Amino acid sequence: MQGHWFTEVFEDCYSLGLRAKTFLHSERSEFQQIDLFDTPMLGRVLALDGILQTSEADEKYYHEMLVHPALCTAPCIDNVLVIGGGDGGTAREVLRHPGVKRCVMVEIDERVVRACQEHLPALGDGVWDDPRLDLRFADAVNMVGTTDERFDVVILDGSDPVGPSEGLFGRTFYENVKRVLGPDGVFALQSESPTVYEDVFFDIQRMTQEVFGRSQPYFGSVLLYGAGIWTWTYASQTADPLALNLERVAAIEDRCEIYNAQIHAACFAQPSFIRRRLAR
Amino acid sequence: MQGHWFTEVFEDCYSLGLRAKTFLHSERSEFQQIDLFDTPMLGRVLALDGILQTSEADEKYYHEMLVHPALCTAPCIDNVLVIGGGDGGTAREVLRHPGVKRCVMVEIDERVVRACQEHLPALGDGVWDDPRLDLRFADAVNMVGTTDERFDVVILDGSDPVGPSEGLFGRTFYENVKRVLGPDGVFALQSESPTVYEDVFFDIQRMTQEVFGRSQPYFGSVLLYGAGIWTWTYASQTADPLALNLERVAAIEDRCEIYNAQIHAACFAQPSFIRRRLAR
Repeated sequence: MQGHWFTEVFEDCYSLGLRAKTFLHSERSEFQQIDLFDTPMLGRVLALDGILQTSEADEKYYHEMLVHPALCTAPCIDNVLVIGGGDGGTAREVLRHPGVKRCVMVEIDERVVRACQEHLPALGDGVWDDPRLDLRFADAVNMVGTTDERFDVVILDGSDPVGPSEGLFGRTFYENVKRVLGPDGVFALQSESPTVYEDVFFDIQRMTQEVFGRSQPYFGSVLLYGAGIWTWTYASQTADPLALNLERVAAIEDRCEIYNAQIHAACFAQPSFIRRRLAR
Repeated sequence: MQGHWFTEVFEDCYSLGLRAKTFLHSERSEFQQIDLFDTPMLGRVLALDGILQTSEADEKYYHEMLVHPALCTAPCIDNVLVIGGGDGGTAREVLRHPGVKRCVMVEIDERVVRACQEHLPALGDGVWDDPRLDLRFADAVNMVGTTDERFDVVILDGSDPVGPSEGLFGRTFYENVKRVLGPDGVFALQSESPTVYEDVFFDIQRMTQEVFGRSQPYFGSVLLYGAGIWTWTYASQTADPLALNLERVAAIEDRCEIYNAQIHAACFAQPSFIRRRLAR
């Protein structure tokens, strides 16, 4: 192994390393360690507190699947709240929908946004100057607990359940998301790997089911997370995750690398071990 | 990082490491370096020539998806040929189908089978003593080129297109597989990651389409391969990959961790970038 490597180690038993051609940025913000570097394998990469977050080459596997299942099925998409997602990729996919009138993005760490604006511009392509974007640097846990605003869709783009994202994994937070959504609102969140973070995955399923009455995990894969299958979760009191709005799909599909109507239907199929455990 | 680690490095730009609790076996066979070790993350693991092949914890993501789409749709499954798969996992899934009368397994390296029988018994559970198994140590490239035997299904469980598996990736080999299959026969093969081995993936699609007239990739994910999405390919002159035999699914589904009828339908959905390129 030649040159400089960035290696993420998970629980002292598993590691994923990327050779870095260039280190672009390294900073300790108020909340976390922020690193950006360029790699031959995946292009530019963002890491927070040593955990790989996103890369130019495979971010679409994550952002398209986080955003479009909710945005292509929610009864209304006028007002969207994005929580986290400081790299801009989630807001970019939201704003691709011409039906979205306003996208409020609440990111706790302004420094992540500024570093990504400079060093990872592809992820925020078209985002930062879009007049529909309302970017706020604040603690989303507090914001959803206190705001009088209401949203049609909430997208949670948080990192792992450690560090600044910890409060985003829990029943009180989900109750507050339900409050800022109307009864027809849709909540989509990244919900970890059922292999690597098994307990977190099943806790999210149980809590979103209890709070919203209905929720469903859906499945894909993200190379950078090194976890085999990856999951997101769709929770709504009334919206049907399979009731696809084909007009909205048609409006975005030419710009998607992963998502399409067939992938939408397919991603909700549950591997048997998950189906059995959720049916208990 | 404490203790001993086994790290696979891909093209000097990407690495996947597993901490080993115990090294179980290390041997240089006539064909390759064989290593078996036990890990806290994935249980026992097999590596060949330094490339991670399979692990107790996630092998079902690979073996079930390699075998069951073909075995649950082929018009006939009396005679099945398994190429490679020295760990036994592929033959195990084949032999779970009560309709299979004979499973010929052709593995080039007897030492892989012997080492896995000793150190990875879960993968060959029920296989080695099954009277339907006809285990042969031979070069499958030569065997399919010369044999007079005929099969209903051929499953290719080869490693990456380097080392002893190299001859398994190519038009002449696919022509010979077509020859040993009747017109209704089904060929299923692992076909790499479209991200990591993009050219190999698309070459396999092109060549199987040319040779069989029809083929389709299908999709899943295997943690150990660290590649995001993983693919297999279904090729047949006449069989329809979506024409599921529900009786056969019912006979195996209680023992599957991943595969079920919904996963079968879902796995053929193509991410947009692949669909576009295959449609050219």
